[in-house]
Amino acid sequence: MAARGSRSLSGEDKLIARYFKPIARHPGALGLDDDAAVLKAPPGCELVLKTDAIVGGVHFFPDDPAEAVASKALRVNLSDLAAKGSRPAGFLLSLALPKSIDAAWLKGFARGLAADAKRYDCPLFGGDTDRTPGPVTISIAAFGFVPAGTMVRRSGARVGDHVVATGTIGDAALGLKLRHDRGAARRWGLSPAMRRHLARRYLVPDPRNALAEALRKHAHGGMDVSDGLAGDLGKLCAASGVAAEVEAARVPLSAAAKAALKTDPKLIETILTGGDDFEVVATIPPARLARFQAAAKRAGVPITIIGRIVAGQGAHFRDAAGRAMSFARASFSHF
Amino acid sequence: MAARGSRSLSGEDKLIARYFKPIARHPGALGLDDDAAVLKAPPGCELVLKTDAIVGGVHFFPDDPAEAVASKALRVNLSDLAAKGSRPAGFLLSLALPKSIDAAWLKGFARGLAADAKRYDCPLFGGDTDRTPGPVTISIAAFGFVPAGTMVRRSGARVGDHVVATGTIGDAALGLKLRHDRGAARRWGLSPAMRRHLARRYLVPDPRNALAEALRKHAHGGMDVSDGLAGDLGKLCAASGVAAEVEAARVPLSAAAKAALKTDPKLIETILTGGDDFEVVATIPPARLARFQAAAKRAGVPITIIGRIVAGQGAHFRDAAGRAMSFARASFSHF
Repeated sequence: MAARGSRSLSGEDKLIARYFKPIARHPGALGLDDDAAVLKAPPGCELVLKTDAIVGGVHFFPDDPAEAVASKALRVNLSDLAAKGSRPAGFLLSLALPKSIDAAWLKGFARGLAADAKRYDCPLFGGDTDRTPGPVTISIAAFGFVPAGTMVRRSGARVGDHVVATGTIGDAALGLKLRHDRGAARRWGLSPAMRRHLARRYLVPDPRNALAEALRKHAHGGMDVSDGLAGDLGKLCAASGVAAEVEAARVPLSAAAKAALKTDPKLIETILTGGDDFEVVATIPPARLARFQAAAKRAGVPITIIGRIVAGQGAHFRDAAGRAMSFARASFSHF
Repeated sequence: MAARGSRSLSGEDKLIARYFKPIARHPGALGLDDDAAVLKAPPGCELVLKTDAIVGGVHFFPDDPAEAVASKALRVNLSDLAAKGSRPAGFLLSLALPKSIDAAWLKGFARGLAADAKRYDCPLFGGDTDRTPGPVTISIAAFGFVPAGTMVRRSGARVGDHVVATGTIGDAALGLKLRHDRGAARRWGLSPAMRRHLARRYLVPDPRNALAEALRKHAHGGMDVSDGLAGDLGKLCAASGVAAEVEAARVPLSAAAKAALKTDPKLIETILTGGDDFEVVATIPPARLARFQAAAKRAGVPITIIGRIVAGQGAHFRDAAGRAMSFARASFSHF
């Protein structure tokens, strides 16, 4: 964490010592006192590598609580480790901070990061802090372990597999809509609890790391749903050279999403393509479905069968009447 | 590299396919077609982990060539891997781009990155691209291999060790001064070649990866010099519980730095504390010095003995008259 911009005990060193050392409990992190960290994979294991960044004003709101920002930054990466069937090993943090960031924000950020590093058993190995004239930018590189050759891939789906999704889909996209349009909650007839649920689902993902082992043992293919179920499942199909048939009515929705959808049926597009779900979509061969379901139950992760892998191309969604659905765009893109 | 912000073949996917796939030649990168990559360490090896970011307007100038920006982003990380005695294994890239970035810039950036990934045998394993309302921000997490337990540490210096530095010190800090003060080159009496040398040393570091194996085999302690020799050596001393005595006159200088220093002796402070050198400072036990020197010669990396490790605290610099030197600040800090 030493890196650029420090003096013998510089501002950066003090910042690191105060806020980040307590999160670097793994011996390989060397207490953040060196320029790099060391990590040894367990025998027979390989590393799963992932990086994802979040940017103030793009992936979170400048006034979001610092704890939540830290959680989101780590969890968007943990979600990928989960979908790939890997156990978290640790992470590196790269933090670019504008001058407006004060000690209270950093304290909150470190508190959120520490809590999640502990919760997901994913310690900090090192990092870098820099000044930026732009917004807070948090880039995390996360590492997981899998027994060699067992990472769950996008390309693993096979014709005949069940398509399963974890948790509920669309909440975060609706939560984001609520942030931009305060009147929507009233129009959608949401209770305060429903409103809070959707807001929370946008603010802080709930990655499915508890399901990683079950995915690794039973899934043919899988990925995390971060850019919209329709688009992400489309990518999985493309990588696997197959198609998926999904019944939209089977896609798992929260009570809040159901209520909103009832008042405005067009929201189905937001729900299926909106992004930020951080759930997992996976394909499970029929012969392994019962064991996968049992393992998911033991892990406490709700899963729902939403469709089937078939020969062909693309992810096809059908409505309750069996009509093919089409979307203006299948998933979210900044570019 | 899939990550956040993409459609089935979204802008991000196209950007990745066009510019970054060719750099992801390692089979574990899965052609950047998955959400994560896999990396297996050679038997008996552990990973060295490092992250460092560079920010437009902070670590480079907005009008620096995109190739040079890419090189700098990767090389500041490679420099740490070198100092730690590790062989590069690969890297993850997190790229936040303002809307002003065009295809020509990205093409240049990818060209620079590809050239260095090849030169240093450090392939791209994955990444993430995002929009930012701020400046270009490039965060890289780099991985290296070392035989388990052999990473060169800051804390390894022992009383009696020689202190050695690679290359020349202070060039980049002087190069940065030239960027801010165009008249300085004339006042310092620099030839055009000298001016270009200093400018280039700021623009693109020359990491000492060729020396990594020699460091791993022979150095007691070491780190890369990124925040100024005086401050960085001070950190190494603090981590090792020792002091260093350095003769400033022995610190290796380029012809350009010598010329500038001759016209303005006060520049010695800039040279010794200015940062961005991306050289290595290491401590070598006398019994291993000859072998280290021979290995460095074979590797083509110039090294200079600049002082000695002694009992005590801090890095102490003496001028040609033997007087203790003091600096307003020992190294660069953003905070």
